[in-house]
Amino acid sequence: MQVITSVKDIKLKVKAIKDSQLTIGFVPTMGALHEGHLSLIHTAKKENDEVIVSIFVNPLQFGENEDFHQYPRTLDDDCRLLSKEGINALFCPDRSEMYPAGFCTSVVLNNLEDMLCGKSRPGHFRGVAVVVLKLFNLIQPDSAYFGQKDFQQTVIIKKMTRDLHLDSTIKVLPTVRDQGGLALSSRNAYLTELEKRDAYCLYRSLVKAQSMADSGIRNAGKIIREIENILNSYKTVTIDYISIVNPETLESVQEVQSGSVVALAVTIGRTRLIDNIILA
Amino acid sequence: MQVITSVKDIKLKVKAIKDSQLTIGFVPTMGALHEGHLSLIHTAKKENDEVIVSIFVNPLQFGENEDFHQYPRTLDDDCRLLSKEGINALFCPDRSEMYPAGFCTSVVLNNLEDMLCGKSRPGHFRGVAVVVLKLFNLIQPDSAYFGQKDFQQTVIIKKMTRDLHLDSTIKVLPTVRDQGGLALSSRNAYLTELEKRDAYCLYRSLVKAQSMADSGIRNAGKIIREIENILNSYKTVTIDYISIVNPETLESVQEVQSGSVVALAVTIGRTRLIDNIILA
Repeated sequence: MQVITSVKDIKLKVKAIKDSQLTIGFVPTMGALHEGHLSLIHTAKKENDEVIVSIFVNPLQFGENEDFHQYPRTLDDDCRLLSKEGINALFCPDRSEMYPAGFCTSVVLNNLEDMLCGKSRPGHFRGVAVVVLKLFNLIQPDSAYFGQKDFQQTVIIKKMTRDLHLDSTIKVLPTVRDQGGLALSSRNAYLTELEKRDAYCLYRSLVKAQSMADSGIRNAGKIIREIENILNSYKTVTIDYISIVNPETLESVQEVQSGSVVALAVTIGRTRLIDNIILA
Repeated sequence: MQVITSVKDIKLKVKAIKDSQLTIGFVPTMGALHEGHLSLIHTAKKENDEVIVSIFVNPLQFGENEDFHQYPRTLDDDCRLLSKEGINALFCPDRSEMYPAGFCTSVVLNNLEDMLCGKSRPGHFRGVAVVVLKLFNLIQPDSAYFGQKDFQQTVIIKKMTRDLHLDSTIKVLPTVRDQGGLALSSRNAYLTELEKRDAYCLYRSLVKAQSMADSGIRNAGKIIREIENILNSYKTVTIDYISIVNPETLESVQEVQSGSVVALAVTIGRTRLIDNIILA
């Protein structure tokens, strides 16, 4: 596998692929790869001639008191995994390649960036949007792959792609969960065994939301209160938000319908976790 | 000349040019074309296989109390001129093509957007940056041409291009002036004869700044005060700002040197005019 660390070299790599008229599937990650990432990679491989994976723990999407420094970095393991998967190009730039001195551009998705996670993570989605735009400009993917777990992120990236006339198709794949239903996340590594056991309540509460909707309950407030009750029964869990939103505007809905998204964020111990389901 | 009004058609046009391996020179304008635009077009023609001109009066770069509605629109004349110049593609989209319902992306050049004109035109450069980025993504120019008159705009576009890894070269051409030295601008059409006569003081004050620098004066404050005296001697002229700045960071300098930029903005009557020189 070719490990590319410079902007100059990734441009050359992409040019070579484009010159050969091959399609590029792109899987942007922050590393600490797990089965969720692998599911993106497998689909990208199926759908494209070449797959480029990036690993970059993007400082711009972390707030001052967030976990940028603790974020798990497992580059050697990640490389082994990607080689085994037959990936032939990994882009893992240094911070100085992506943000040289004087870098000052942000991308703002008005309305979308301040909702949900944006409320407690101000600036987070500007950081996400600008790094994804930079990566897209470098890698020029035909398709780029994201997990549904970061639902707001997928909405923002789809909107940015459309608003800026980017030529990439954004593919959002289902959240991969462990056997108990916990959404896979690199941040799960922060959880103690006890916290992890409690963390299963997230998915259980989302399943409950689905079953309430299935039983004909349309009132979003009622469903949210039920989720709240479930989550509040765990002492380790502090709710950040529970919202049922329109899947494109992210605005709260009063009446749920098929396609409405139940999204939530909590902290368990010191770990912030998010999860969501799209109501059937 | 092919007049293209839809995003879909400009993409097809660009694809056809790219498929023929021809280079694209791009001249983005807001129309009401004058010799300043023509100088960009002539250089673009010399340096590229194909030249695409755009005319789009971009609502996002006008403030609420600014002249979006009055801005001169002379599309028929512009088309005749461009045809005569041998331009074969003009892109002049409707507002709804560029900003369909729900459009919500802005591009922010932190630090650069709030200086100089940004102070009295909040949001202006976000509007400029996003429209230029959209146009670049649609037209994928090898080179794009801008006039030095809008100096801050050129700095911001160069910075955005670098920060976002865009593959276009930004070319900035000298300000074209009339015989009295007034920088050509579509907004000069707003001036009465008397106001226009007074407007010549802008360039005269910049020439004075150069001659002070030539005579060895390094103190920026001293040069600024001299410009201020010249401009203040005209009753019709109200100064917005006079600054001498670093050409990349736009920060004010204390000591002028070769390459420092003397930039100013005034209102004459109801017309806002800007001008600048790069000190020799």
